[in-house]
Amino acid sequence: MPAMLFDPPYYAVIFTAQRTDGDEAAYARTAALMDQLAAQVPGYLGIESTRDAKTGLGITVSYWRDEAAIQAWKTQADHVMARQAGRDRWYASYALRVAKVEREYDFHKPENDAGWA
Amino acid sequence: MPAMLFDPPYYAVIFTAQRTDGDEAAYARTAALMDQLAAQVPGYLGIESTRDAKTGLGITVSYWRDEAAIQAWKTQADHVMARQAGRDRWYASYALRVAKVEREYDFHKPENDAGWA
Repeated sequence: MPAMLFDPPYYAVIFTAQRTDGDEAAYARTAALMDQLAAQVPGYLGIESTRDAKTGLGITVSYWRDEAAIQAWKTQADHVMARQAGRDRWYASYALRVAKVEREYDFHKPENDAGWA
Repeated sequence: MPAMLFDPPYYAVIFTAQRTDGDEAAYARTAALMDQLAAQVPGYLGIESTRDAKTGLGITVSYWRDEAAIQAWKTQADHVMARQAGRDRWYASYALRVAKVEREYDFHKPENDAGWA
């Protein structure tokens, strides 16, 4: 469900990560828990996440009202532990970027449009 | 290949899109061509893109030195046509965000670290 808009300015945390092989069940369980916990942080707006099963490359973008919300999430205790597990076990490499969203657009195909067919 | 860093401040264009079904060959061909053309724009820094084959949700983040580079890419003729094809055929919905990257971090697992095993 993309195409959520949040009224700029707000913040995006762009996390691009290369998974190691294996340990999928524990990883998925932790990822789902982190999504739940993040949503409880005041100033959380939303999250979009996807991974290519073949290449192992994943991109997660979380959206936050302000820097205070990002700092609150960064110091959340379970999240601190999950990040350590990520470095120890789940990620071969990652990049994390904090960016201020200045403008946004969306598109929804009209319901009765059959598209390319 | 995530974990490219580019020295903030610079810009990220975050494109999250839900694919329609089908037309995969033409879509993949156009996407590859757009990657090539974007890389020729002065001020282009890099791109990260991934899609979950099961859900059809894709996230592409392209990185640009400044707003002028984004504007140059936005008006590139083949890119204008590809965007129209995206709305006509390939995307059920999308969101596009322009964000200024303020800080960045990366992580690379040490080579001899066996990880979770």
